[in-house]
Amino acid sequence: MSRKRYRFKPKAIGLVGDSPGMVRIPEDAHKPHIQVFSYNTKEVVASKGEAFSVIMKHLETCTEHTHWIKVNGLGDAELFQQIADILKINPLVLEDITNTRQRPKFDEYDGYVFATSRVIKFNEEHELTNQQFSAIVKDNLLISFEEDYSTCFEPVIERLKSGKGSIRTGGSGYMCYALMDTIIDEYFVVLADIGETLDTIEDRVYESPDKRIMYETQHIKRELIMMRRVSWPERDKINDMIRSDSPLVTPEVKTFLRDAYDHCIQIMDMTDSYKEITGNVMDLYLSMVSNRMNEIMKVLTIISVIFIPLTFIAGVYGMNFSRQDEKGRPIPDNMPELYAHHGYVYTIGIMLLIGIIQVIIFWRKGWFNRL
Amino acid sequence: MSRKRYRFKPKAIGLVGDSPGMVRIPEDAHKPHIQVFSYNTKEVVASKGEAFSVIMKHLETCTEHTHWIKVNGLGDAELFQQIADILKINPLVLEDITNTRQRPKFDEYDGYVFATSRVIKFNEEHELTNQQFSAIVKDNLLISFEEDYSTCFEPVIERLKSGKGSIRTGGSGYMCYALMDTIIDEYFVVLADIGETLDTIEDRVYESPDKRIMYETQHIKRELIMMRRVSWPERDKINDMIRSDSPLVTPEVKTFLRDAYDHCIQIMDMTDSYKEITGNVMDLYLSMVSNRMNEIMKVLTIISVIFIPLTFIAGVYGMNFSRQDEKGRPIPDNMPELYAHHGYVYTIGIMLLIGIIQVIIFWRKGWFNRL
Amino acid sequence: MSRKRYRFKPKAIGLVGDSPGMVRIPEDAHKPHIQVFSYNTKEVVASKGEAFSVIMKHLETCTEHTHWIKVNGLGDAELFQQIADILKINPLVLEDITNTRQRPKFDEYDGYVFATSRVIKFNEEHELTNQQFSAIVKDNLLISFEEDYSTCFEPVIERLKSGKGSIRTGGSGYMCYALMDTIIDEYFVVLADIGETLDTIEDRVYESPDKRIMYETQHIKRELIMMRRVSWPERDKINDMIRSDSPLVTPEVKTFLRDAYDHCIQIMDMTDSYKEITGNVMDLYLSMVSNRMNEIMKVLTIISVIFIPLTFIAGVYGMNFSRQDEKGRPIPDNMPELYAHHGYVYTIGIMLLIGIIQVIIFWRKGWFNRL
Amino acid sequence: MSRKRYRFKPKAIGLVGDSPGMVRIPEDAHKPHIQVFSYNTKEVVASKGEAFSVIMKHLETCTEHTHWIKVNGLGDAELFQQIADILKINPLVLEDITNTRQRPKFDEYDGYVFATSRVIKFNEEHELTNQQFSAIVKDNLLISFEEDYSTCFEPVIERLKSGKGSIRTGGSGYMCYALMDTIIDEYFVVLADIGETLDTIEDRVYESPDKRIMYETQHIKRELIMMRRVSWPERDKINDMIRSDSPLVTPEVKTFLRDAYDHCIQIMDMTDSYKEITGNVMDLYLSMVSNRMNEIMKVLTIISVIFIPLTFIAGVYGMNFSRQDEKGRPIPDNMPELYAHHGYVYTIGIMLLIGIIQVIIFWRKGWFNRL
Amino acid sequence: MSRKRYRFKPKAIGLVGDSPGMVRIPEDAHKPHIQVFSYNTKEVVASKGEAFSVIMKHLETCTEHTHWIKVNGLGDAELFQQIADILKINPLVLEDITNTRQRPKFDEYDGYVFATSRVIKFNEEHELTNQQFSAIVKDNLLISFEEDYSTCFEPVIERLKSGKGSIRTGGSGYMCYALMDTIIDEYFVVLADIGETLDTIEDRVYESPDKRIMYETQHIKRELIMMRRVSWPERDKINDMIRSDSPLVTPEVKTFLRDAYDHCIQIMDMTDSYKEITGNVMDLYLSMVSNRMNEIMKVLTIISVIFIPLTFIAGVYGMNFSRQDEKGRPIPDNMPELYAHHGYVYTIGIMLLIGIIQVIIFWRKGWFNRL
Repeated sequence: MSRKRYRFKPKAIGLVGDSPGMVRIPEDAHKPHIQVFSYNTKEVVASKGEAFSVIMKHLETCTEHTHWIKVNGLGDAELFQQIADILKINPLVLEDITNTRQRPKFDEYDGYVFATSRVIKFNEEHELTNQQFSAIVKDNLLISFEEDYSTCFEPVIERLKSGKGSIRTGGSGYMCYALMDTIIDEYFVVLADIGETLDTIEDRVYESPDKRIMYETQHIKRELIMMRRVSWPERDKINDMIRSDSPLVTPEVKTFLRDAYDHCIQIMDMTDSYKEITGNVMDLYLSMVSNRMNEIMKVLTIISVIFIPLTFIAGVYGMNFSRQDEKGRPIPDNMPELYAHHGYVYTIGIMLLIGIIQVIIFWRKGWFNRL
Repeated sequence: MSRKRYRFKPKAIGLVGDSPGMVRIPEDAHKPHIQVFSYNTKEVVASKGEAFSVIMKHLETCTEHTHWIKVNGLGDAELFQQIADILKINPLVLEDITNTRQRPKFDEYDGYVFATSRVIKFNEEHELTNQQFSAIVKDNLLISFEEDYSTCFEPVIERLKSGKGSIRTGGSGYMCYALMDTIIDEYFVVLADIGETLDTIEDRVYESPDKRIMYETQHIKRELIMMRRVSWPERDKINDMIRSDSPLVTPEVKTFLRDAYDHCIQIMDMTDSYKEITGNVMDLYLSMVSNRMNEIMKVLTIISVIFIPLTFIAGVYGMNFSRQDEKGRPIPDNMPELYAHHGYVYTIGIMLLIGIIQVIIFWRKGWFNRL
Repeated sequence: MSRKRYRFKPKAIGLVGDSPGMVRIPEDAHKPHIQVFSYNTKEVVASKGEAFSVIMKHLETCTEHTHWIKVNGLGDAELFQQIADILKINPLVLEDITNTRQRPKFDEYDGYVFATSRVIKFNEEHELTNQQFSAIVKDNLLISFEEDYSTCFEPVIERLKSGKGSIRTGGSGYMCYALMDTIIDEYFVVLADIGETLDTIEDRVYESPDKRIMYETQHIKRELIMMRRVSWPERDKINDMIRSDSPLVTPEVKTFLRDAYDHCIQIMDMTDSYKEITGNVMDLYLSMVSNRMNEIMKVLTIISVIFIPLTFIAGVYGMNFSRQDEKGRPIPDNMPELYAHHGYVYTIGIMLLIGIIQVIIFWRKGWFNRL
Repeated sequence: MSRKRYRFKPKAIGLVGDSPGMVRIPEDAHKPHIQVFSYNTKEVVASKGEAFSVIMKHLETCTEHTHWIKVNGLGDAELFQQIADILKINPLVLEDITNTRQRPKFDEYDGYVFATSRVIKFNEEHELTNQQFSAIVKDNLLISFEEDYSTCFEPVIERLKSGKGSIRTGGSGYMCYALMDTIIDEYFVVLADIGETLDTIEDRVYESPDKRIMYETQHIKRELIMMRRVSWPERDKINDMIRSDSPLVTPEVKTFLRDAYDHCIQIMDMTDSYKEITGNVMDLYLSMVSNRMNEIMKVLTIISVIFIPLTFIAGVYGMNFSRQDEKGRPIPDNMPELYAHHGYVYTIGIMLLIGIIQVIIFWRKGWFNRL
Repeated sequence: MSRKRYRFKPKAIGLVGDSPGMVRIPEDAHKPHIQVFSYNTKEVVASKGEAFSVIMKHLETCTEHTHWIKVNGLGDAELFQQIADILKINPLVLEDITNTRQRPKFDEYDGYVFATSRVIKFNEEHELTNQQFSAIVKDNLLISFEEDYSTCFEPVIERLKSGKGSIRTGGSGYMCYALMDTIIDEYFVVLADIGETLDTIEDRVYESPDKRIMYETQHIKRELIMMRRVSWPERDKINDMIRSDSPLVTPEVKTFLRDAYDHCIQIMDMTDSYKEITGNVMDLYLSMVSNRMNEIMKVLTIISVIFIPLTFIAGVYGMNFSRQDEKGRPIPDNMPELYAHHGYVYTIGIMLLIGIIQVIIFWRKGWFNRL
């Protein structure tokens, strides 16, 4: 895993002092692709690539269907102008859709509701991406907005086409729930991946602690900070939806939302547990490194210390004290050992003895044990 | 204790975008064993091994008994289909039963209630297992689901057979409580075991700190994270049951639930205390190791330092300064010590003195004291 | 202070799956001693040693007195049977009395209330003991239960006999409050002792940090964890009593309970402050030890480093380069210093100089300063 | 980035025991510059530099406009006297305006409301400044107070002049919101800057950890402490405004305030995330430094240890054991190696061997690996 | 700053089991000095030194004034007896006044209210003192109690005499507020002092970290723990007063109390920020010390390592391998270097080279850089 970081600085969209409700399209936004799904219990009609105003004209004539307009890409100011004109959407909502740094939230307006979620998933380079999903629900119409041409709602489209479950009968509110539920399911996938990485890292801490563990743990910490920043407001949003009086959030949908609420709490739980485990792993790694370092230093120091007295003795018998003074008189007490029979052998023997005694002492003090 | 870890990653059951309420049986699920206990104040009738539809037919005719259908093992999709068909259970409930990663929760539905708990206990290898228990309570019927063929409800069956306490008179709600209470009692056993392990580890920290303490403390931390993740929602669940308006949770059962609620808080208390103590033990261990290491390094360094000046002196008198220059003229100030009477003895004496003075200085500075 | 630890593991009373409300007397429980105090504004009649059933018979005839039955020791199953039979007490209450691991709590039942507290005090070996006090209040009767033959309620008995304050007029509810207040007062004594120990330890950290400080701080941490685990539910209990509608908790008693509530919060405040100070003391100790160790290592290393270049010089002039090659030709550039006049003196001088320069450099870099 | 610090000590304005509501102008306050903007849907009339009493006279005659009096600089006690006299403002409000250490708050009074915010931005030296903004809203009049001649409301003036959005129609309440919104937008700019700095620092930690990272992280921590201290009460203030019953805060303004409320929570979220990341970066830095230090010490120690046995051997063969005793008798066992053919070559060989063996051993133990 | 500590242990006033409401005067209490201020809008009459009963007699005749009885010193049990007798004050209140370890609180009784605050200020030795202020407010009478003869209310007396603000018209409730406000103002002074000390310490950490920083930071931590322990209940107390229904707390006073409430929150904010900064400073100090120590050790170790190979070489050429074997035969491969022309010069040269190469290697690895 290469070193990647999540930059949390908000994208600089909008200038300080901008009028609230002003739509500013970021320059690198994708051009919108629009798909339309009109369905009722009997059929699903899908179309693609038409202009928004054309779509809306068409839909007006077709009231017994529920319509899901799926917009991928936000890079067209005119589209939002049309949405505002045709559907009478508050400019604050449009600002929220285009300013892709919103926290998950749910707002009720006259005749429609608005919700945003964060789509967290791994991209092809196995980097976490954090994109915005937003949806306007109005009568039998759902308009969903995604930042790019992601395919993460394919399973929902499949279910829609196959007609399984309540998806064709639940109305636009249920469809909105189905999309958000898919997003939350994705969180579990992300957390499962993080959990697995964490397990792998912990194994490596025990087996071969190296410096990269530090980077990777740091990386996971950032991922978890992001998950927590997303899951908390997500839970609050779902709670707001459950408590909402809007007829667009039907009791049936509320039952399902309660399930999603439980999932959110589970996500938060897991995120917190993982954070704690990440901290533990980091602590463990630091302890392991410090222990190993201590181990090395200890062994090295013991080796030094064993030789130091021996070297001293060798030094002593390397001294040049003379057996005769300047006048040639013998000095019998100057290093008589050097002239003793077996002097060298005894000296080597004493050195060996000292070395062995030291080893024994250190051994008995338990200094050779691993701490 | 070998190194084991709790993997927190959710099992990958269900795919992203699955329709909510879809029952997916994990492949490694046990085949269900079904036991039935029909009891009233007078008698207990136990049967075993019949198919669910057969059981239900039989029970319809037998209204003055309370029935407990005990299902061990979830590996049969058809069973759940029958439960849905015969008892009209919401598919979300069936999904919750088979998706064995639920947090403890309590949900009320029309005519029945649904509750899940986590069964935490040590298996034969003394590893903590975390399995799901769920129960549907409907009129005089309780259906309980366990993941495997565990025997942890044997005491309840014993009490049922012996007829002690309120167990035969309390109805299906009381039986549900009795099972959950048994699960909570098991938590105390687990915590008692953890507490004992913690005490043993702490003793070892004082007496012989070694590296395994780190692993084991880490291990206990994970166990406690799991206990906390389970006991918090368990408490909330019991609170929901106490506040429930459902006639299936009778006032008598609520009195007992209040007791269980107290037990849950006690579990949480103990878990938190243990976590704190685990942290303390870890800190203590690290301090001990660091202290011991310091001790060793200090002793070794003191030994080195004592010999360094002595070796230097030996080195000085090992120099070969000549008493005569190249022309044979005497150089009287070149190392006259070497030619002095008693020069060697004095030198050895001075070395001894320096060594002793160093020892005294270090002693008086308190460097030999244990820190 | 010797090394003692508080074992937090719950005593294994009751088996998993026990029927709730089952009274299990621990085997090492004391045999109950029963004292009875019957009092009104005019007189106090004390008796001792009678059987419970005898006492109750006697009390029935004596309605204008308030009765306090003081039970010390819980080791008699029959006693609890009698209490259940005569006073119609719920088995859950009796289980709570005998299962001496309850958190402080207050429960209301039909016609009586039940409260438990934890008695924390130092025993003769200056170890903290944590015992259970429980009380049943019913009409003009208070039955109090203690685990052993403690004398901690002597002051209350004194006040009762002397008739000071509201003690004789306040009824059984006031008496219950008076006992709990005495227990809380004891907490202050314990905390005062802990505070004093903490102050002593902190003084020692500054003056002579040694290893025992670590053990003792650890010990105090455990004591404070216990105090906090006790004072939080104690406060909740008192709050429950203040909010209770039971006629047994009179408005007058509630006024006093508000006072006790303040005391509890003060206890919690102090406990938290002490915990924080304990953490600070530990940090301080670790810093002191690390600083001292650093100091020692620094001095030792400086001594080594000063001698290393000197030893090297001595080594150089101990080399045996010959002034004549094998053929007897002079080699004038082989160690001419050795044959120089004053060579030795200069060498020693240079060594001294190098040593002094090093000392000066290290001095000016501030390496001799205490960090 | 130079080392700057945020001094949190409150400016000593007002003396202990001052009468509440006493206006004390700090000595270094700027002289007030007053600008007036009178606007309705049709026109904007701006004037400048007139005295307050003159302005007020003028405004009385001009009721169909909304008036924004923008006061920059607080250094004129008389101004506040006039405000109090003409507009009947409570002295507590005036004290709050001049005492520039207020937390953000919103107070309602009879006929007017009062709000304060903190303006946080970077000055020219890229230091964070924390100044007070306060505003009185009364009927169609808004008086705003800033500490200095800042130009941070230029965008609002621009919007006012161009007439975009609701700014000319929203009344004085909307204008107050618009100013506060601009201040909050500025927070995002500050946080974006902090985020970028944090990213740069983290990159440097990985690439070239040096001491300045510590100072800069410390610096950012202080900035974040300030942001948090400002954003929490800001959120509470906006909440108070949303819940206010004052007719000056119209429902339209409340819709916009809800948006600002979301922004505030986002600010708090980001601040907390940044704090956590700052902590992580600091930990990472300390680990990196410690690791690098360990690396260096390890290499150095290994080098020492390799040479120590070799030096010992050299020392041994530097000993002067004599081949003849004092009487000239040969001592054949005194260092025969010295007289052996190839003795020197073997010795050097053995030394090389020992060195190589050591290197191999250390290598195989993984001591040369980076930890 | 000398080393001082705040002892948090409660003063041992009252014995365990004391009757609640018992007044125990601590032995070292000051004898009470009583001052009386009777004032209305027209005049202020001050008197001093009279006995309490005399004062009360006098006051009864003087109903159109508001009376402030200022009691300094609590050392007279009879005084409290008289207060109880004449004013019918609950004994619990008198206990709270004399037991000077109360948390700030506000209690309402029949016909009077009672409030306590903590007076925190520096004494002449610049030590923080923590004393109790309490006040009884009854109709037009305020009795304030201080522990010693402090002059901290002089400014209030000044304002009373000069008649500025609402002080003469606000009644006894306002006077009580005025005193408490003065106490809170004092907190700001204390915190400003702490903030300044903290800034000084932080400067010193960067410039010359020494051990005293640890003591002083520890000291400030204790001061902040005390401030927090005081400001939290102070805020709660003021909140209780604001919510009080007592006619003694008039709406006008409540307006001012809201201001005091804001100040309290500001105090708490500042205390928390300071605590955080204190922690940061401590961390910074520890890092600085550790870095400096590392720096020293690194330099010393590098010096050692540079000389170790050199000393080894010198050792090698100090070996005494003989050029002739015992039989006088030449051994040409025994240390031929010693007999080589320029052998010594080459050796010294090689030593220099090795030294320089080492320095270059270490340099290029960046080991001489400051970490």
